[in-house]
Amino acid sequence: MSDSASVKPAGRTILASTIAKPYTEEITENVSKLSITPKLVGFLANDDPAAEMYANWTGKTCQSLGFDYELRQVDKNDLEGALIKANKDDQVNGIMVYFPVFGNNQDQYLQQLISTEKDVEGLNFLYYHNLYHNVRFLDPPANEQKSILPCTPLAMVKILEYLGVYNKLLHYGNRLYGKKVLVVNRSEIVGRPLAALLANDGATVYSVDINNIQQFTRGDDLSEQRHKVIELDSSEYSVENLAPTCDVIITGVPSDKYKFPTEYVRNGTVVINFSSAKNFNDDIKTKAALYVPSIGKVTISMLLRNLLRLIDNKNIRRLKDPQSN
Amino acid sequence: MSDSASVKPAGRTILASTIAKPYTEEITENVSKLSITPKLVGFLANDDPAAEMYANWTGKTCQSLGFDYELRQVDKNDLEGALIKANKDDQVNGIMVYFPVFGNNQDQYLQQLISTEKDVEGLNFLYYHNLYHNVRFLDPPANEQKSILPCTPLAMVKILEYLGVYNKLLHYGNRLYGKKVLVVNRSEIVGRPLAALLANDGATVYSVDINNIQQFTRGDDLSEQRHKVIELDSSEYSVENLAPTCDVIITGVPSDKYKFPTEYVRNGTVVINFSSAKNFNDDIKTKAALYVPSIGKVTISMLLRNLLRLIDNKNIRRLKDPQSN
Repeated sequence: MSDSASVKPAGRTILASTIAKPYTEEITENVSKLSITPKLVGFLANDDPAAEMYANWTGKTCQSLGFDYELRQVDKNDLEGALIKANKDDQVNGIMVYFPVFGNNQDQYLQQLISTEKDVEGLNFLYYHNLYHNVRFLDPPANEQKSILPCTPLAMVKILEYLGVYNKLLHYGNRLYGKKVLVVNRSEIVGRPLAALLANDGATVYSVDINNIQQFTRGDDLSEQRHKVIELDSSEYSVENLAPTCDVIITGVPSDKYKFPTEYVRNGTVVINFSSAKNFNDDIKTKAALYVPSIGKVTISMLLRNLLRLIDNKNIRRLKDPQSN
Repeated sequence: MSDSASVKPAGRTILASTIAKPYTEEITENVSKLSITPKLVGFLANDDPAAEMYANWTGKTCQSLGFDYELRQVDKNDLEGALIKANKDDQVNGIMVYFPVFGNNQDQYLQQLISTEKDVEGLNFLYYHNLYHNVRFLDPPANEQKSILPCTPLAMVKILEYLGVYNKLLHYGNRLYGKKVLVVNRSEIVGRPLAALLANDGATVYSVDINNIQQFTRGDDLSEQRHKVIELDSSEYSVENLAPTCDVIITGVPSDKYKFPTEYVRNGTVVINFSSAKNFNDDIKTKAALYVPSIGKVTISMLLRNLLRLIDNKNIRRLKDPQSN
């Protein structure tokens, strides 16, 4: 395990700040055109210092891009009431919660409680459903209101576009055709929706969790508008034998102890880590073509982009039906 | 063997004219800035109707982009004298010969006879040597006069750049890092220099001819500035088992009878044919991500770009030494 100083990079390390730049510029410009200053409220109901740091960082980013940000620290037993109040408050445009709160299924209940009209992280079931089924609009057949995408999977798409993994010459919805992607994480928040999103764009995705490896593809029936999942036979397929066949390796393992084995990575692979822990040793740079060590700055851009989209969608609804909220 | 009508494309067919467009625009603009009208002379010393058609097409393209073009039809036994005369003629900026003439090694002699200062096709040994050794300039250490690249391999590089196979985020000279390319053709004019060029840019290239398969890589010793070639064991490696591992398949087999087997091609492959014969059946479109069926229009753009570069190089030499030619 070599340290930074002794590593001779084969390719390049790309920072999330570089990728986020055009989005933060676009966001700043679009915010300046609005008649209101959009307000994001973050709810912190745990005493995890890391969550508080993340909350403060969100606040600073919001303010630097022209948003109002308010952090509301509440007792976890008061969070439900606080969310209901914020849902109804016209002064609040976006809501996010720093999970985990209870650390069990009650967190999913709280997550679904955030109004779809204010769900900047795109965590509502409606948005996940649309992602899994490749539904891009909220109001068919008019198709004026774009659906919201969960911000971490969306950030990953934008990163893969920036890195040139999406091929712009191919038609929209087919730009990952022929690409193989390994995703180590199958959480409901990121890993599974990410695998589906990439499969819907034409990739073959190997989705790894502690139990098994699943293969996500678009499937043959495009009319179904849904990815196809099969479980791979563990006697035949492993991370060790799949990783070298992949164009892209993405990890999101929330543990400082976990390291993806560099020896499984083929020279020239695109490597991305979305965990806040460092899932690769520095010697990954001797193999990766492009290495993105963290993605937080792109994710927050997508969150604020979602907030602007929610405001757009609301304005469209108001124009169509002035009586609506 | 399906016909066009029944083929449902998986990706897109990209025409050479689309790829050539920015180059023809750049060439037209640069020609208009010159104080002279550059003159290209083509020598036709065979009675092949295809060569004559190609010669006429070259002429039309030249004229449409602002060049003078003169076709000189000579007896093959007079070609040597005619080339020597053209080499000395200050009114002639570029020379090309429509090969084959004798159809044997005498053609190589004639090819080398064209002055390096007028060799628009980049066929001189000097230019091939520079290509194989990754030498980019003619005048180290000043490095003001760029070396000429053979126009078909150069066209292929430009095509791969357009198709997004070269990754612009990687450093110059490393933009094919991690890519695998199959090249079916190992001629001295195109296939072998092409394999070296792509290997020098970081690719692993499988170079196929009728006798064997060779693997071209950059090699470990970058200071050597030269690709590394090994012959692959035919009991282990075949076109059939290598093709599905490749990101790109390039063919240049000058026979109407030859067809690359579509069943060897993995879904999502980039497929390019540089032969004037059609080396793929139409059903390749059911598998290829991007398919470029012919490249002639890009090649002629590179030829005229080389002509402008030869004029630039000459002007630089004149500025440095007014006594020189």
